[in-house]
Amino acid sequence: MTADERGVTPQSEDFSAWYNELVIKAELADRGPARGTMVIRPYGYRLWELLKSDLDRRIKETGHENAYFPLLIPQSYLQREAGHVEGFAPELAVVTHAGGKPLEEPLIVRPTSETVIGEYMAKWISSHRDLPMLLNQWANVVRWELRPRMFLRTTEFLWQEGHTAHADEADAMRETVLALGTIYARTARELAAMPVVEGEKTPGERFAGAVRTLTIEAMMRDGRALQAGTSHYMGTNFARAFGIQYTGGDGERSYAHTTSWGMSTRIIGGVIMTHGDDKGLVLPPRIAPYQVVIVPVGRDGGGSEVVTAAVALAGRLADAGIRAHVDDRPQLSPGFKFNDWELRGVPARLELGPRDLAAGSAVLARRLGGAKEAIRLDGAPARLADELDAFQDFLLARATAFRDSHTVTTSEWDDFTKAVAVGWARALHCGTQDCEQEIKAATGATARCIPLEADQESGRCIRCGRPAAYGKRVIFGRAY
Amino acid sequence: MTADERGVTPQSEDFSAWYNELVIKAELADRGPARGTMVIRPYGYRLWELLKSDLDRRIKETGHENAYFPLLIPQSYLQREAGHVEGFAPELAVVTHAGGKPLEEPLIVRPTSETVIGEYMAKWISSHRDLPMLLNQWANVVRWELRPRMFLRTTEFLWQEGHTAHADEADAMRETVLALGTIYARTARELAAMPVVEGEKTPGERFAGAVRTLTIEAMMRDGRALQAGTSHYMGTNFARAFGIQYTGGDGERSYAHTTSWGMSTRIIGGVIMTHGDDKGLVLPPRIAPYQVVIVPVGRDGGGSEVVTAAVALAGRLADAGIRAHVDDRPQLSPGFKFNDWELRGVPARLELGPRDLAAGSAVLARRLGGAKEAIRLDGAPARLADELDAFQDFLLARATAFRDSHTVTTSEWDDFTKAVAVGWARALHCGTQDCEQEIKAATGATARCIPLEADQESGRCIRCGRPAAYGKRVIFGRAY
Repeated sequence: MTADERGVTPQSEDFSAWYNELVIKAELADRGPARGTMVIRPYGYRLWELLKSDLDRRIKETGHENAYFPLLIPQSYLQREAGHVEGFAPELAVVTHAGGKPLEEPLIVRPTSETVIGEYMAKWISSHRDLPMLLNQWANVVRWELRPRMFLRTTEFLWQEGHTAHADEADAMRETVLALGTIYARTARELAAMPVVEGEKTPGERFAGAVRTLTIEAMMRDGRALQAGTSHYMGTNFARAFGIQYTGGDGERSYAHTTSWGMSTRIIGGVIMTHGDDKGLVLPPRIAPYQVVIVPVGRDGGGSEVVTAAVALAGRLADAGIRAHVDDRPQLSPGFKFNDWELRGVPARLELGPRDLAAGSAVLARRLGGAKEAIRLDGAPARLADELDAFQDFLLARATAFRDSHTVTTSEWDDFTKAVAVGWARALHCGTQDCEQEIKAATGATARCIPLEADQESGRCIRCGRPAAYGKRVIFGRAY
Repeated sequence: MTADERGVTPQSEDFSAWYNELVIKAELADRGPARGTMVIRPYGYRLWELLKSDLDRRIKETGHENAYFPLLIPQSYLQREAGHVEGFAPELAVVTHAGGKPLEEPLIVRPTSETVIGEYMAKWISSHRDLPMLLNQWANVVRWELRPRMFLRTTEFLWQEGHTAHADEADAMRETVLALGTIYARTARELAAMPVVEGEKTPGERFAGAVRTLTIEAMMRDGRALQAGTSHYMGTNFARAFGIQYTGGDGERSYAHTTSWGMSTRIIGGVIMTHGDDKGLVLPPRIAPYQVVIVPVGRDGGGSEVVTAAVALAGRLADAGIRAHVDDRPQLSPGFKFNDWELRGVPARLELGPRDLAAGSAVLARRLGGAKEAIRLDGAPARLADELDAFQDFLLARATAFRDSHTVTTSEWDDFTKAVAVGWARALHCGTQDCEQEIKAATGATARCIPLEADQESGRCIRCGRPAAYGKRVIFGRAY
């Protein structure tokens, strides 16, 4: 493969082509055989494992237990909650035959697990002492998407889904907010370096069957919004549909209040589009499969002495907790390797040749600009640790600045349309779905969220001029 | 629930009833809604996580990379390898409708992933430099089983499946043996305390599409064998079916040699039946979700001072790497709790009351016999760590002694039939499938494996008297 074949279409020319080419060329994923499916390759899966391990830790630290519920759900379960079935019916994959015979009742490949988990919560919960019940599962789910895109919207995707039951609304809402803020927003910011906005969805954008839906929204480098995780308060909708009841301390029977919340492999699409550039991926160090790649240089790849020194250096970096990789592929030139690892987003590269080795140094090149620099081999672990921390912070700061410079607070329709063409608009809105639809038809933008932390404001709707709802500005933007 | 309702049928009375009741009452799993499926509850799932984390570490340390391939596989893929489709056809679950419409080509819910991974290996491998390709995936699979049993044979189960491609047979066989011995046998012995025998399957017991199948076989406490993990050498069967070819250093095109290997949630059934007794589960400390349970005793649960001290003790045990849990459920008596945690197999229990606290001690009770004993609170972490190590070793030694005392080496048919009624027989065999079938019809026993480490022997077949095959004795037993 030549260097040209590995290059990608510039973002400014066609952002969508840039994304699709990059996913494949950086070996994050390949298209799967069935429509809209994907194969997650080792490089992409490692990214997911690093995110997953942080999420799993936070989920456990906040008192949740992992469990596993069946993939195949009887069709009748899906039909018990009216809003839920209406939302999911068009997207279901159905098993009609098994073991060589037609099934008496078709089985749905789970699109999400509220229904089957509701059935078991009803069985396991009898007393207020059983509450709260705090469950989570890591699973694959299937939704037959009309416009699939790798990582962003695939027919099958991997995620975790938290499902909890509580004695009352106050406790369930505390949970809904905790999942969004303490789990999702922190993983997004601290690992993925994505400066997400925490907010609530407007009624038209709620999850099927939910009373309230909270969301974290991130801005991609084309100015579009990506919903990166959601947390739902279900009220007693699922408790009533599945009979999740408990006896209180006073002997009264009550319905439990439930929540659910999910974050998926979609976040990888968010990482790509938050930080990537025309050279390829830019990975935040905390989720980079390789944080440092060492490339031996010089005639014959520097010779065996250089390769040995590179391997020893990688070992010392590993001892310091740094994921380092030596690229000693003999058939490829250093120049090819430099481009390759830039495409794949490795934060830092060390070039090591015979002269560097003799001088006790290596040449450090950063994924984002700056001149190359010689660094001392003996101080390399500490130096790289500092570089990686600084790079992680820089990416979050850069993405925050990008988002803020592409967000306009406005009360003028003209400014609003200009703002959502390239980013987000913060505007007052009447809160009706009809008006949201009109805005979408006119501009392509939808209500992304009502930020949880926003000043109280009143006034008139940006579109129709009726009195504003929510008492806060709503973020509008075109979305993935 | 009364203490009686929590008790289980004795093993000696009905081993199968004992197993089924225990899985439910110890809250490892519940039956799922669709036939043969199960819900893995938090206690069972934590066991799986502990095993999984050890397996995943070994898989990575031996150079394999995790990836993820689609759940839904086009029907035509399954048909490309003749032996494979013949073996799996009766067990498939088929998606015929999706997104509200019939599919043009039905999709199979993966029963295993050789076919879809074969398709992508063919795409990714072109040169000898791409070999070996060492992949693994953690996934759910679906096989429509005729006689489902929780953990042992469920319609859906969780597992890892390793899939690798190599330049030649020697390298592929090294991999097949490595997966069996360095990964599976060590996890089984060191974590699950199961003294597995490593061996090769006879031709009639091979995986569908394999040239050689290696297995680890464990003996349950009813004398039956459990296949606890398998590793397959596929020769070039799948490489030819999917076109996995590479160009050698000499420019010649050759087919790759592939392997696959899997270990599943079935291992949890093995743990239950290797160590459990009439009081319930007995969990090896290394995979016990709780290694120590602290039960406050005395009037009113010992009072708040005792509960506070119990929580502090649990914290000190946790600091020493011990998974400790305080059972402070106010509505239950200490006696109920003692039975409950014995049923759930916790290796060690500490009883802590006001008088113990005043004396700076706690009462240690072990899951397997021995008198209760007062231990010093200040030395508790070190003491418990020793107890747990000793208990882990004891379980492996006890299971090994049980297996050896229920294994008979014989050349007499009468002794053979007596041996396989209660355990295993080591006997010479002619190697024909007809004769294996006759043995099965006469005794219920099947050829479990030809142990890898067995002395060379020759002689006549235990059943038909023809010359023995394999040059080694074969282990026969009734199996799960």
